[in-house]
Amino acid sequence: MPADSTIFAAEVKVEDHFQSLPERSKHEDFIRRAVDLLVERVVFGRSTRTSRVVEWAAPDDIRKCIDLKPREGPVSHEQLLVLMADVARYSVNTAHPYFVNQLFSSVDPYGLIGQWLTDALNPSVYTFEVAPVFTLMEEEVLREMRSIVGYRDGDGDGIFCPGGSIANGYAISCARYFMHPEIKTKGVYAVPKLVMFTSELAHYSTRKMAGFMGIGSENCINVKADKCGKMDVEDLEQKIKAAVEDGCKPFMVTATSGTTVFGAFDPIIPIAEVCKKYKVWLHVDAAWGGGALMSKKHKHLLRGIEMADSVTWNPHKLLAAPQQCSTFLTKHKTILKECHSSNATYLFQKDKFYDTSYDTGDKHIQCGRRADVLKFWFMWKAKGHSGFEKHIDKVFDNAKYFLDHIKQRNGFRIVLEKPECTNVMFWYVPKCLRGCETDPDYNERLHKVAPKIKERMIKEGCMMVTYQPQGELVNFFRIVFQNSALDHKDMIYFADEFERLGSEIMV
Amino acid sequence: MPADSTIFAAEVKVEDHFQSLPERSKHEDFIRRAVDLLVERVVFGRSTRTSRVVEWAAPDDIRKCIDLKPREGPVSHEQLLVLMADVARYSVNTAHPYFVNQLFSSVDPYGLIGQWLTDALNPSVYTFEVAPVFTLMEEEVLREMRSIVGYRDGDGDGIFCPGGSIANGYAISCARYFMHPEIKTKGVYAVPKLVMFTSELAHYSTRKMAGFMGIGSENCINVKADKCGKMDVEDLEQKIKAAVEDGCKPFMVTATSGTTVFGAFDPIIPIAEVCKKYKVWLHVDAAWGGGALMSKKHKHLLRGIEMADSVTWNPHKLLAAPQQCSTFLTKHKTILKECHSSNATYLFQKDKFYDTSYDTGDKHIQCGRRADVLKFWFMWKAKGHSGFEKHIDKVFDNAKYFLDHIKQRNGFRIVLEKPECTNVMFWYVPKCLRGCETDPDYNERLHKVAPKIKERMIKEGCMMVTYQPQGELVNFFRIVFQNSALDHKDMIYFADEFERLGSEIMV
Repeated sequence: MPADSTIFAAEVKVEDHFQSLPERSKHEDFIRRAVDLLVERVVFGRSTRTSRVVEWAAPDDIRKCIDLKPREGPVSHEQLLVLMADVARYSVNTAHPYFVNQLFSSVDPYGLIGQWLTDALNPSVYTFEVAPVFTLMEEEVLREMRSIVGYRDGDGDGIFCPGGSIANGYAISCARYFMHPEIKTKGVYAVPKLVMFTSELAHYSTRKMAGFMGIGSENCINVKADKCGKMDVEDLEQKIKAAVEDGCKPFMVTATSGTTVFGAFDPIIPIAEVCKKYKVWLHVDAAWGGGALMSKKHKHLLRGIEMADSVTWNPHKLLAAPQQCSTFLTKHKTILKECHSSNATYLFQKDKFYDTSYDTGDKHIQCGRRADVLKFWFMWKAKGHSGFEKHIDKVFDNAKYFLDHIKQRNGFRIVLEKPECTNVMFWYVPKCLRGCETDPDYNERLHKVAPKIKERMIKEGCMMVTYQPQGELVNFFRIVFQNSALDHKDMIYFADEFERLGSEIMV
Repeated sequence: MPADSTIFAAEVKVEDHFQSLPERSKHEDFIRRAVDLLVERVVFGRSTRTSRVVEWAAPDDIRKCIDLKPREGPVSHEQLLVLMADVARYSVNTAHPYFVNQLFSSVDPYGLIGQWLTDALNPSVYTFEVAPVFTLMEEEVLREMRSIVGYRDGDGDGIFCPGGSIANGYAISCARYFMHPEIKTKGVYAVPKLVMFTSELAHYSTRKMAGFMGIGSENCINVKADKCGKMDVEDLEQKIKAAVEDGCKPFMVTATSGTTVFGAFDPIIPIAEVCKKYKVWLHVDAAWGGGALMSKKHKHLLRGIEMADSVTWNPHKLLAAPQQCSTFLTKHKTILKECHSSNATYLFQKDKFYDTSYDTGDKHIQCGRRADVLKFWFMWKAKGHSGFEKHIDKVFDNAKYFLDHIKQRNGFRIVLEKPECTNVMFWYVPKCLRGCETDPDYNERLHKVAPKIKERMIKEGCMMVTYQPQGELVNFFRIVFQNSALDHKDMIYFADEFERLGSEIMV
């Protein structure tokens, strides 16, 4: 039934709803019913295995079902509840245990309540005056994270920022300022041609931010990765040397702890030695893999990370905090402020009656800033470090179980024999292609399988797993485990579903 | 009573809480009680005039009252509820009608429910596959906003982004790419020395982003503002000429619609003519004043905005949407994508089964991105355009009433006789300074008044109003109206409170 918001409009008075203040007489009934819908139909209704991961609808179908266009007049509370239900219905169910499509998933119950509290307090974090609790909470949480990274006494600085891409941008900003402070006021023109280095399999944000920040994406130089997806350190050193010979000035290397597709961890210790030798800033993009630091069993994957000048670590990925929760951490205590401050007198008055060193807003590039810390802090309180450790150990265990399981089964071909993180990569080979591995068109045909399985999967809504090509490898699936509510039975479910959806496919 | 989270830890089992999945048996009771606390004690409890705007506590006091440090073990549900209440208690009550300290305030009931729904759905907006409803909703809302700006048929492009500073960064990025597309890959080195222009009273983010983006803050050239805070267009043209004579290449002018302190609107039409003459990009930072476009009575303030190449407009400011809700709008249909795309094959596969032109994620610099659209869309549905118009007219009416009122009262000295937006600027002159206007130390003494009143105000929690100096003007108050639940009685309350807090102050 198409939702025509105009049908209720006649009953609704503009006068009743235009003010931005919750009032019991006007809003209590609506808020109670809306919350009930959220708790029953969204939070509990969508996190069960028996619900669908997605109710697929094409763009035009969605437009028919939800009146997306803003209108002249208001709609009634009844109609708003219908709109909420419809938005939920056609949205992908990222809380579903079988949404394993991205490097994020799940709706953590404590993270959710932390978000809801944040929203109800509606803060912006830039001065202690306006956000006292959030300011101190960020300080404590970031210090704890720096301690876990291995910075001495947790010293240094950091910031919660809107996503790992922006965090990687902060790294570029700090690194070039560290080498050439005049860049802040004079710009890139004033210094030698800067170049930076990262693996060809690093996340695209490093190159994208190099473009955005005036360095140029081509001046972010690709370093080769080996077959396991790890940076080739010899190639790094050669590329640095070559750049110097070309008259460029290397200022930064970004190593990755947990690449986006393979989940590979670059070898930080030898990379750090190269950085030391050539006096360049080492940034570790641990947006994805950082969570492994919470586990005694798995933190070895990031061995040497304490040598990094800065780190990106997104709790919304491996630790399953809600979107978005990203951090930039650095061992350099004052650089964020030196590099980004502009001393606006309307916001950062120095004659306030409290210690204005708590006004941290001038060290970041945003002005107003959401308080992304509370939801993560609240999860940390609810679970303890020991809970996060159990979470990490469980998702790694699931990944290993799934890999071992599909190695035994017909139709699955493994891309990477020993993945390091919780990404498992494989081709599903339908019956029509089995035994054809030496055919000249085998790869071309195999490339077409994943999109076909994906289409069936989405249209049924039974699970969501992504696929992609990489280099010379044709389309393969990447399943990602970061929901610790899954268990071994679920691993078998996934394999069964691939078989059911894919075995009879003709390509 | 200090909250020691360890006291309950013994009862809590790590096993019960580490998984990120809401389960009725484990979480229903907690979620219900948490929601009740949110609705009763936060949403309704804090939005009444009888509550306090802030319960002031120094940093060390807050640390004593809330155990902010993450711990090894989990705490109980009981203790989590205590923590929630304490976080709320010591957080500034931005929902309070008397929080008029910043360019944002209030907790809109519909915006709040929109946020809570967003959180429960936990999306990230980059592909249609993962965020179908949010993708289409952004398209509709941004098109409507472009229509309101005056772009023909609402054509063009745009993006919701984390704050106005980042939106102003997008403007710089698009403007310089428009002039020199090679900048994306080759960097700023590859092109003539670029310079940009904005008023000396523009928001600091433009200069800050010029630094971040490799242009250099000094290459963002200050244009003089007149006494009302509006850009001096003759000075703009002279500065452009001088820059060209110096061998620089002007590429962009940022005009402001609603400056941060004075709420001044730069004259867009003559600025646009200068931009046309010198072939530079015109960006209008209407982060603050953009909301006035919703009102037939006040939209004249932004006359000519349709001539801008791009616009920043933050619904979280004058339209009272929750934090954060910022948009970047441009009349150039393809530039965001051309300028920022990196074509990552793991996310933006072209062999998906649907029309991948709906995958908009490659046009922005974030990868994962919060869905800031829903809360604003939901408010728009609940109020209609007509509701937003009433809201705008009401806050302008309040500002005018307050200004007229304090003009009549002893002790108030007006900074700007005819402010254009809803910012009202004044000095409160205590009795000890009245009649001393010609004393040589008058200004020095007056400068000390605002911090003293502010300290009393905060410690009592009766209201929150900010102060700042500007240029040669010593500390003055700026009260900001963007909560349409206020009425004329509240205006008199504010004036009475200044008198009560300030009249006997000795400086």
